[in-house]
Amino acid sequence: MAPRFAVTYFVRAADEAEAKARALDIALEQTVEIPRNAVPSGYVEDEILGRLETLETDPAGRPGYLATISYSEDDVGGDFLQFLNIVFGNSSIKPGLKVEDIHLSPGLLQLCKGPRHGISGLREQAGIGQTPLLMSAIKPVGLTTRELARLARDFALGGMHYVKDDHGLVDQKTSPFEERLRACVDAVGDANATTGGKTRFVPNITGPATAIIERAKTAQELGAGAVMIAPALAGYDVVRTLAADPDFALPIVSHPAFSGANVVSPDCGFSHRSFFGTLHRLMGADAVIYPNFGGRFGFTRDECLSIARACAEDLGGPKAIVAAPGGGMTFARVPEMRDAYGNDVMYLVGGALLQEPNLVDACRRLVAAVYK
Amino acid sequence: MAPRFAVTYFVRAADEAEAKARALDIALEQTVEIPRNAVPSGYVEDEILGRLETLETDPAGRPGYLATISYSEDDVGGDFLQFLNIVFGNSSIKPGLKVEDIHLSPGLLQLCKGPRHGISGLREQAGIGQTPLLMSAIKPVGLTTRELARLARDFALGGMHYVKDDHGLVDQKTSPFEERLRACVDAVGDANATTGGKTRFVPNITGPATAIIERAKTAQELGAGAVMIAPALAGYDVVRTLAADPDFALPIVSHPAFSGANVVSPDCGFSHRSFFGTLHRLMGADAVIYPNFGGRFGFTRDECLSIARACAEDLGGPKAIVAAPGGGMTFARVPEMRDAYGNDVMYLVGGALLQEPNLVDACRRLVAAVYK
Repeated sequence: MAPRFAVTYFVRAADEAEAKARALDIALEQTVEIPRNAVPSGYVEDEILGRLETLETDPAGRPGYLATISYSEDDVGGDFLQFLNIVFGNSSIKPGLKVEDIHLSPGLLQLCKGPRHGISGLREQAGIGQTPLLMSAIKPVGLTTRELARLARDFALGGMHYVKDDHGLVDQKTSPFEERLRACVDAVGDANATTGGKTRFVPNITGPATAIIERAKTAQELGAGAVMIAPALAGYDVVRTLAADPDFALPIVSHPAFSGANVVSPDCGFSHRSFFGTLHRLMGADAVIYPNFGGRFGFTRDECLSIARACAEDLGGPKAIVAAPGGGMTFARVPEMRDAYGNDVMYLVGGALLQEPNLVDACRRLVAAVYK
Repeated sequence: MAPRFAVTYFVRAADEAEAKARALDIALEQTVEIPRNAVPSGYVEDEILGRLETLETDPAGRPGYLATISYSEDDVGGDFLQFLNIVFGNSSIKPGLKVEDIHLSPGLLQLCKGPRHGISGLREQAGIGQTPLLMSAIKPVGLTTRELARLARDFALGGMHYVKDDHGLVDQKTSPFEERLRACVDAVGDANATTGGKTRFVPNITGPATAIIERAKTAQELGAGAVMIAPALAGYDVVRTLAADPDFALPIVSHPAFSGANVVSPDCGFSHRSFFGTLHRLMGADAVIYPNFGGRFGFTRDECLSIARACAEDLGGPKAIVAAPGGGMTFARVPEMRDAYGNDVMYLVGGALLQEPNLVDACRRLVAAVYK
């Protein structure tokens, strides 16, 4: 028998009998996808069929149960997308069902080596100790490469550790990918030469299926300091592939664009921690961007802190990564952020800085506030 | 000024003022992603910034409004994922917001050529007229290649037009991808030689990011009749890339695994028709699998029929594709299906056939029932 991994689902149900029936249905749906009476005995039934391990009332008090179902590593077949398919492929379509937690196994840790750098590697590259990281974004789409590079320079002069493309910047005619990449790497390099800083430029490499890996390599060749990918758009195996590529060495920042439906509904998708924490670590993201509480999105403080904890908890292999909450961050919120996240966080501040009349000065005030 | 495409969103709101504020927020969030007062005047404000075109109370009576926002083709930059990002990138994370309809523009139709074959091409390959198509699936995972090929042969002998891999079949040791592909193509070919039929085998090519395109080409070389991809796992540009690849000619079947959260919540994600209809046609899928009403998933009859209509309506270019409802189909439901979908449908029946003692005979009875 192969080792088994397990998934804990929240299952909406009126009573235990209904919960058990639904859980056994998940165990079938996610593995053999045929009626129970058609499951061949022997290997398929004993090994491949999902196995209901535990069923308990929901400790969080929601109207349902927590069902933990185990699955065989044999079913994964060394394929990360098949792992995701087992976790939540067809069952993602059933309302009243949510992935709460994923419990790993040795084979999964072998398949998912996790991030190359993690939070400790990012700090090393930034030349800082156990303190917060700072990231900002050049934007909006529609500016010329010259204007965007100027912003990149100013963010670097102001002391941000990472300066990323807005996730909407791809290969628009106003600022083609490679032209922008070269100009921003140069601009950040010039600023570093002035300040003695170590700011790194992070291009968005989300793009056509056949171009992403190529853009990652181009970014590395041309001196980028990391790359950004939106896995919900580009596909969930792209980050893992790059993180495991022996010819690639840059950190990877993940962006949550298009992933919202996977977490925002209380009745479907994933828990915040399992999606932005566990899955992104398994993929190999070094930093995971998600909407901060109190900003213009609806995540609660508790949901955000559950993500930060999942970025750091012991998974038996994959390095701890850094939570990068963003979306509506302002200067005034720095104390609240410090109180919530402590030092293991990457402050992602964009619009609030771009609203200020003097960008370099605004960045310096932000750095001072964070490092107070 | 570049041509503009538009998206109609359902916006949950208590009154028109709130709806308008939320709609203007979407227009910012999806394009410039900076506060309104920081948007540079000129090109960015006039061209790139999303534009609220209309706002009306929801005709369906939900507690909110329909907001139609237009976006510039310049923002797309010839990138399908950036198009999706504009449609619903960050706003996917905001609850109480749903993509209802997508209104195309000339540049999008240029970028998204749509399916190579469509329903008419699939029928031509199957050698049928304006009648329903039939598809089944070999499964479960855990069977050997020999056992799976035997099922493929029996489905072909029984008269199914397409025999696909279960979406959980990847490259497991019990049945490696290429071994299974070769064996099933042979088995289906043998059956066709016996019956004079034209059954086609459809391997699942969802897999590692660097392997998908290669598997597609291998499938074509080795005589597959189509390929299947789960775009929510593999990435939304993979189908489009293959559909536009001059060296690839097979039809593409899309599978809904992992996409559920995008549609099942009434409060986030996409309408059924825009996700499984419009987007899959733009991607270039020839057949779109989704859970049928009345089966073991929760889609309603109306939701399913809205998908079927979106597969066929005039989009100004992309061919009509075929809706392939599956999941819990039984013999008894054939009349209900015929009544609902008419002839423009692909019956996807798996488990109900595999439960029968004689698979070939069961398929023949299904064919007879559908063609009655």
